[in-house]
Amino acid sequence: MKPFRISVHIVPRKGLLDPQGKAVADALHTLGFAAVGAVHVGRHVVIETSAANATAAEAAVRDMCARLLANPVTEDFEIAGVVSA
Amino acid sequence: MKPFRISVHIVPRKGLLDPQGKAVADALHTLGFAAVGAVHVGRHVVIETSAANATAAEAAVRDMCARLLANPVTEDFEIAGVVSA
Repeated sequence: MKPFRISVHIVPRKGLLDPQGKAVADALHTLGFAAVGAVHVGRHVVIETSAANATAAEAAVRDMCARLLANPVTEDFEIAGVVSA
Repeated sequence: MKPFRISVHIVPRKGLLDPQGKAVADALHTLGFAAVGAVHVGRHVVIETSAANATAAEAAVRDMCARLLANPVTEDFEIAGVVSA
């Protein structure tokens, strides 16, 4: 069992409203950042876990995302990186 | 002016309490993921903006983070990626 550090991005599913992103975009316009278009706000989760190898670690984290971290109705997740810790 | 898509990670500053990460780690243990150690929860923000070049786009986003997106007392941010949109 080796230690791994896995990064996950959990983002609102495409096509669904992203009110938090809209609010951030509006606030950036108010601050004078006129060139800003859309903004998307999601969660960045880093999980430290141990597993036999990187493939097993990634599979475990996919399971965690499906069961706890991401709302399957409204959110998508992607594994952003798996590194040995 | 070319379109860019810039990803930012905003995370709790190291050494500060991360109660959300602690709650997620506890919930994962309860679900049977015994191998999980620490969990860190931050925000993943994707900003679509236009700028003369990638360097200017990144500089603008750093300014946005410092002025609006990240709390300078409790959070750190890093530019995770700059891609032409």
